[in-house]
Amino acid sequence: MTTTAAHQLPEQLPDLDWITDPLRVGRLSQDFAWFSPVLKRELAGKRAEIAVRPRSEDEIRQVVAACASAGIPITVRGSGTGNYGQCTPLHGGVILDLSAYNAFGWVRGGVGRAQAGIRLADFDAQAKPLGQELRWLPSTYRSATLGGLFGGGFGGAGSINHGPLAAPGNVLAVRAMSVEPDPQVIELRGAEAMRLHHTYGTNGIVLELEVALTPAIAWTECIASFDDFDAALEFADRFACAPGLEKKEVCFLAAPIPEYFTSLAEHLRAGCHAVLLLVAPHSEAGMREMAALHGGQISYRKTAEEVKAGNKTLVEYTWNHTTLHALKIDKNLTYIQSGFTPQRRIEQVKALQAALQGEVMMHLEFLRTKEGAPNCSGLQLIRYTTEERLNQIMQIHRDHGVQINNPHVYIVEDGKQNNLDPAVVATKQRFDPQGLLNPGKLRSWEAVQPVRQTA
Amino acid sequence: MTTTAAHQLPEQLPDLDWITDPLRVGRLSQDFAWFSPVLKRELAGKRAEIAVRPRSEDEIRQVVAACASAGIPITVRGSGTGNYGQCTPLHGGVILDLSAYNAFGWVRGGVGRAQAGIRLADFDAQAKPLGQELRWLPSTYRSATLGGLFGGGFGGAGSINHGPLAAPGNVLAVRAMSVEPDPQVIELRGAEAMRLHHTYGTNGIVLELEVALTPAIAWTECIASFDDFDAALEFADRFACAPGLEKKEVCFLAAPIPEYFTSLAEHLRAGCHAVLLLVAPHSEAGMREMAALHGGQISYRKTAEEVKAGNKTLVEYTWNHTTLHALKIDKNLTYIQSGFTPQRRIEQVKALQAALQGEVMMHLEFLRTKEGAPNCSGLQLIRYTTEERLNQIMQIHRDHGVQINNPHVYIVEDGKQNNLDPAVVATKQRFDPQGLLNPGKLRSWEAVQPVRQTA
Repeated sequence: MTTTAAHQLPEQLPDLDWITDPLRVGRLSQDFAWFSPVLKRELAGKRAEIAVRPRSEDEIRQVVAACASAGIPITVRGSGTGNYGQCTPLHGGVILDLSAYNAFGWVRGGVGRAQAGIRLADFDAQAKPLGQELRWLPSTYRSATLGGLFGGGFGGAGSINHGPLAAPGNVLAVRAMSVEPDPQVIELRGAEAMRLHHTYGTNGIVLELEVALTPAIAWTECIASFDDFDAALEFADRFACAPGLEKKEVCFLAAPIPEYFTSLAEHLRAGCHAVLLLVAPHSEAGMREMAALHGGQISYRKTAEEVKAGNKTLVEYTWNHTTLHALKIDKNLTYIQSGFTPQRRIEQVKALQAALQGEVMMHLEFLRTKEGAPNCSGLQLIRYTTEERLNQIMQIHRDHGVQINNPHVYIVEDGKQNNLDPAVVATKQRFDPQGLLNPGKLRSWEAVQPVRQTA
Repeated sequence: MTTTAAHQLPEQLPDLDWITDPLRVGRLSQDFAWFSPVLKRELAGKRAEIAVRPRSEDEIRQVVAACASAGIPITVRGSGTGNYGQCTPLHGGVILDLSAYNAFGWVRGGVGRAQAGIRLADFDAQAKPLGQELRWLPSTYRSATLGGLFGGGFGGAGSINHGPLAAPGNVLAVRAMSVEPDPQVIELRGAEAMRLHHTYGTNGIVLELEVALTPAIAWTECIASFDDFDAALEFADRFACAPGLEKKEVCFLAAPIPEYFTSLAEHLRAGCHAVLLLVAPHSEAGMREMAALHGGQISYRKTAEEVKAGNKTLVEYTWNHTTLHALKIDKNLTYIQSGFTPQRRIEQVKALQAALQGEVMMHLEFLRTKEGAPNCSGLQLIRYTTEERLNQIMQIHRDHGVQINNPHVYIVEDGKQNNLDPAVVATKQRFDPQGLLNPGKLRSWEAVQPVRQTA
């Protein structure tokens, strides 16, 4: 029944930009979940029946009203740069592709506002001439949207300063639409807005975001390379924490990860451990002194101008782009995501390196936690053999006191193995009483209010 | 012999601005060491024979050359806002008052440069229209000089972001003069420059400083007041650490300290615990949400414009100004300075509050350590009885694992009870081979090279 209903939407709303071509609908039903052999298998064949690319709030409202009236599932999508199958519909229906709802709003003081579908790179291109920039830049920032980052992302370059998006004060407000026959639009501010964060678009349609910014800096991009694992790690950690040295990114890549970066090969001698970093020009001398103290060599350096002219940034070698570059070379790799214990991070990294070297390649992103503690987060590369062994590896991390944020699951709650704030479930109830938003992804709500099996 | 020589200097260099009036020379031989009953007693009667206020590098060179030739001690001074008798000469000689050597140099990107005698407030007045401000503002910033802060200070408001001055990357370079018959002027950069930091002007005469800045913000000033000690403490700590909430100052004052602030009495109900803070406008809403969660009330709020118009800032109630306000009301008070253990800071504060409540009043300044760990530093007020009891109180803190930075001593090494970096001693040897700079304050060098007893 719903299948029919979804396919009838273009007839009902002929002025909208519908996508019906099965190949294109298939592509719009996917993200980078193929990083995970587990998700690749589990999500195979899951797809929407149709997609739509609204250009205005009114067009969004028309789609939502029609879907709510007909009981058609809606899966919201940005650019599909996530890794957890966030935008893959489990129960068919419509893909609501917000990438055309992308107007830049304004920058006032340290605050900016834009429509959800704006690409992060486009936002920064508008904000930088006004002296401000985004606080976090995932490695996918060229294509990733602001709404997508909020709905399914964590942070990125810049989280070393401002923590993850989830830290209070980063996202100031969202304007969200409910899924009802008569959709309501509501502005949520502060903690209330955060109840829609990282819920894969299950509990409201985020139309606009208001975010805190940070003064724009012409970041210099460097690689410090080291012969010794411990020296590289200590440098990365000290530089990341140094409160007088301004930076936007500190990425530690143990050997042999740098060897996957064929396009940087001339700057990375075989067997080296590399720290990729973005540093403010006024902090470069201090960074260099610190690197030299730890036996590091600056084997790559580009000023912001050179980065712009060359259209090549180290940001696109960090975070999940590290994984992407490695997968291009070796299809048998996968990865895990892990959160170390702030006070024990270095000993944990060393212990896990000793325990799993060869099978697990250490990739650390330095950051501040939501509460502000200096820490690092792992995006370790794994030589994949079996799902059983992958689970063992994750368990070995947990046994060392390291939290696993499992990227091989597609349900919100499963990623962090913790319970959802009941306020998030209440927000779902408020914004999606029929359970039409990305059904199957928010277990806590579905436990209370079983989802209609529509496909 | 030297006494005669010092008094003959005006005749030798008649074009300089000499101060010979004994009352004025006496005042210029003092700082705020009277905060400590111990220092007050020990430094009583210590004074220079004469003071000079040079206006150019050439005038400084003339004084230095003459003193070096005649073996006259030189004690460099800014505005005398320190608390450790840094600028009190133990062996007579000349006070080199650099407050007239105060030209603003430039701001380029995130870096600024000025002569040592510039007042911090004057520096900021020049830098802010260029979009930048100093990274640290001691509560004495209206009169304190940049050179004085470097020579005898620690940090201040802003250390919550950038740590103390001593953190790498904060002070980028100094231009320093040696004390020799033919004085040499040398630019020291990076770690080398820091060997002249917090050494009370004993190992070189700092002429100019180049410092990293931070983008200027129109800080809003607030007081959050609480009924409950633990709730106030937890709020202060959480707000201080929150990486998404931009701030410049977080000062925790346990009851009854707020009652010493008679000029803020209408905003501080009797018995309250107060958190004085400077917050960025875009972070105020998040700060208020956090304060409300902890049962706090925002009982005082001024925008940057109002602060400027009223010429009254909360900064002048924090750090050592807290001590000053309290001493104005109760002459029997003194204070200690303490550094908590980052990972145990909250339990240590609570344990010491339980152990010493009534006799010790908790005053905490939140900051990041030199290495970047979130922490707090105590400037506890003490109801002074005897020196023995004062030492006991300090020992009780050490017994709880808290480091005491003893403000009741005047020798560089005694403050922190640790050994001086040998590189600092070598710098002393390089810049002051005759031991004429503030003799008696740098024990490590004098142990090697006994100071000439000149007075």
